[in-house]
Amino acid sequence: MKKYTEIKDIPNLNETIKEAILLKMNPYDFQELGKHKTLVMLFFNASLRTRLSTEKAAKNLGMDVMVLNVNDAWQLEFEDGTVMNANTSEHVKEAAQVISQYADIIAVRAFPTLTDKTKDQSEYILKSFKKYATVPIVNMESATTHPLQALADAITITELAEKPKPKVVLSWAPHPKALPQAVANSFVEMMQNLEVDFTITHPKGYELDKNITKETPINHNQKEALKDADFVYVKNWSNFKDYGKVLNQDKNWMMTQDKLGNAKFMHCLPVRRNVVVEDAVLDSENSVVIKQANNRTFAAQIVLKQILEGLK
Amino acid sequence: MKKYTEIKDIPNLNETIKEAILLKMNPYDFQELGKHKTLVMLFFNASLRTRLSTEKAAKNLGMDVMVLNVNDAWQLEFEDGTVMNANTSEHVKEAAQVISQYADIIAVRAFPTLTDKTKDQSEYILKSFKKYATVPIVNMESATTHPLQALADAITITELAEKPKPKVVLSWAPHPKALPQAVANSFVEMMQNLEVDFTITHPKGYELDKNITKETPINHNQKEALKDADFVYVKNWSNFKDYGKVLNQDKNWMMTQDKLGNAKFMHCLPVRRNVVVEDAVLDSENSVVIKQANNRTFAAQIVLKQILEGLK
Amino acid sequence: MKKYTEIKDIPNLNETIKEAILLKMNPYDFQELGKHKTLVMLFFNASLRTRLSTEKAAKNLGMDVMVLNVNDAWQLEFEDGTVMNANTSEHVKEAAQVISQYADIIAVRAFPTLTDKTKDQSEYILKSFKKYATVPIVNMESATTHPLQALADAITITELAEKPKPKVVLSWAPHPKALPQAVANSFVEMMQNLEVDFTITHPKGYELDKNITKETPINHNQKEALKDADFVYVKNWSNFKDYGKVLNQDKNWMMTQDKLGNAKFMHCLPVRRNVVVEDAVLDSENSVVIKQANNRTFAAQIVLKQILEGLK
Repeated sequence: MKKYTEIKDIPNLNETIKEAILLKMNPYDFQELGKHKTLVMLFFNASLRTRLSTEKAAKNLGMDVMVLNVNDAWQLEFEDGTVMNANTSEHVKEAAQVISQYADIIAVRAFPTLTDKTKDQSEYILKSFKKYATVPIVNMESATTHPLQALADAITITELAEKPKPKVVLSWAPHPKALPQAVANSFVEMMQNLEVDFTITHPKGYELDKNITKETPINHNQKEALKDADFVYVKNWSNFKDYGKVLNQDKNWMMTQDKLGNAKFMHCLPVRRNVVVEDAVLDSENSVVIKQANNRTFAAQIVLKQILEGLK
Repeated sequence: MKKYTEIKDIPNLNETIKEAILLKMNPYDFQELGKHKTLVMLFFNASLRTRLSTEKAAKNLGMDVMVLNVNDAWQLEFEDGTVMNANTSEHVKEAAQVISQYADIIAVRAFPTLTDKTKDQSEYILKSFKKYATVPIVNMESATTHPLQALADAITITELAEKPKPKVVLSWAPHPKALPQAVANSFVEMMQNLEVDFTITHPKGYELDKNITKETPINHNQKEALKDADFVYVKNWSNFKDYGKVLNQDKNWMMTQDKLGNAKFMHCLPVRRNVVVEDAVLDSENSVVIKQANNRTFAAQIVLKQILEGLK
Repeated sequence: MKKYTEIKDIPNLNETIKEAILLKMNPYDFQELGKHKTLVMLFFNASLRTRLSTEKAAKNLGMDVMVLNVNDAWQLEFEDGTVMNANTSEHVKEAAQVISQYADIIAVRAFPTLTDKTKDQSEYILKSFKKYATVPIVNMESATTHPLQALADAITITELAEKPKPKVVLSWAPHPKALPQAVANSFVEMMQNLEVDFTITHPKGYELDKNITKETPINHNQKEALKDADFVYVKNWSNFKDYGKVLNQDKNWMMTQDKLGNAKFMHCLPVRRNVVVEDAVLDSENSVVIKQANNRTFAAQIVLKQILEGLK
């Protein structure tokens, strides 16, 4: 693997998932691979799971890790040709090239504005690092995608599936604040690449980007969509058309034990209890969110491992 | 040791203190113990000594360390059954379970509100981590206790005592801001378990929790209390009855060289010079605050060592 | 080397530069030297290059590193004899002594106020750490100097010089905000110690401290000064006489390809594009700013190496 900015960067998805599951059993088997290699993790935004699981993954591989909250450094400029006489102190051209000299791999987290759709869709932060860095980039959640989460999700479904082609449903949930579409987008893309029977359900008007959902069936009737589901991935996203708006907080879309039935409950976390999903679901044996979060380590570790193997 | 959230968790206090003093001479003797073990340190509040000494202790033992300021992650919910549609994004139930998968030990610092006595006394943050985490918890100062500090204090007194049963006095000091009772509480509890002649002195009305002070003599006459003291531990705490209030800033309670006499001066630091204690004391040979701070490393290290030994 | 708070601390500059260039080829050759040694890095201010390159340098030498943003700890008092009943919680006397017990070397970054010239010139933060710490101090940019940057600059010029005594010009540039004189000061001092033909050019009234510039020629005609230059170091600094003021933002002082000619362009970064220097220069092969930033690692590493060699 030369980088991991999108799911497509994984050369062989099924093999990679299997390798991740094996890695989980012997996480310290490849410590020589990361020796004298440094991961620099750059955070433009808050992080708990991504921060800790990716740092742990790198250390499992014997890497050194340096974590930088970008707020502790300089405000970056991303536009070309700007006369930088306002708030930005450093252009990403310099920053990315410079950091590349202190790092063997750079991981970047940068959320969308959720106010400027064109800017967010352009993925200007992630793309700038890809363009100017001279070492591989790992996406720790960008404006529109979260491929490490999606890989952890795929590992989780592969581990827990009880039949060959399980039914997986992505079900929109209400939320008081505007959230990115990133997790949903990457989950959709990942499911399109797994051997699953995949359906999306959300209120009318909450369509995700059609370039992502493609031919995936969308059912606005949540009850119908959830029928016979094996895995239900619940997630809020803010409106994509009326960009970044919270147009719907309909509590009827909250996931309940009754709706879930015997399906396994998935969520990327953090999750708002009794808004996105009722306590009874999260506290039941059907919830696999903790296992899912554990797989974040091995998703990151298999990605870093494959990138390290590709270095020189 | 299965955890270190309170002094009682130490199975054999005198043995542990002696072992800590030995560890200080050969701090790198147990690096195999921490190999492939990770300490996650969670900070809800400011820290200098606790942060650096605990991180150092873990690294002395060969552990990996990940430090997370909770402000860089998500605001946590601690109440059960809440409809989380306001400011909190993640329930501690999930957070603690998730972090447990990235850590072999979790250390938590969380100060009290000093406005809501019931909430503070409930130790809801520390107890939530104890309840939901699946790995041992270390208390890096909670709402009402600071057991790592108290252990460092006990090590210091044991090292420096010049007679079998030294006289130790805890003397309240004035301070412009409302401070927790945590350090005082844990020091009191620790002294009750050491072979010392222990007295508390503070202005009337500044009584600590009676469930903690128990039968320990309290003398409101500072001069009398300090007579023939071998160790004087000076510390401010805000009012416990009229909870969290600063009712008294009487400068006469400041520690002076004159009052201290030949006793050794102790303080947990940070200390406000010429408010809590005059310069002359801190700058004299009687002050042992720097040695005390050094013992923070070995207090943390003996705790982590005993916990690591108890893992599987 | 016993510390690195100023350029003068380097015992043999030319030898040190050569050793740094050798280190660059085999950065992991001295990992035994840093074993069980800890670098504590203290940041009072923002940092990107200094943070990452110094941390990397220490890890290249096998050291453990602990990074502390001072804002995450306690506000420090630097005055002697203060009654600390206001905002400061801890005196640097205690802080420096305490941290010295957790560190083998302490590195400090502390910018000037740019409002109180006397205070800034006193270097009270750096000097307090030098005075009270009991381990060597490394200056990661103080109020008036940036000796690690200057050492990286000297390494860069030594590596890239194409003739015995190259002509080096320090050229002032406009900037919308008040910046320290630190980088310029240390560059001037470093050039005075290298075998170079060195000139400074800046607008009238922008004189640096005469105790630093000494006999170095100053030419207010930028074009004349730049003639036949081999290296042009561009840098803004705020006014030194009318202290900390931005009296001049004259765009004619911006560096352009036309002015630069065939000289190599140097800057410490971060740099404001099209304010300090035009895009065409930064994007040309004449710009060596990325190489310069890479040398920050080896400047820090040679300094840490020599200090480690001097420990006991």
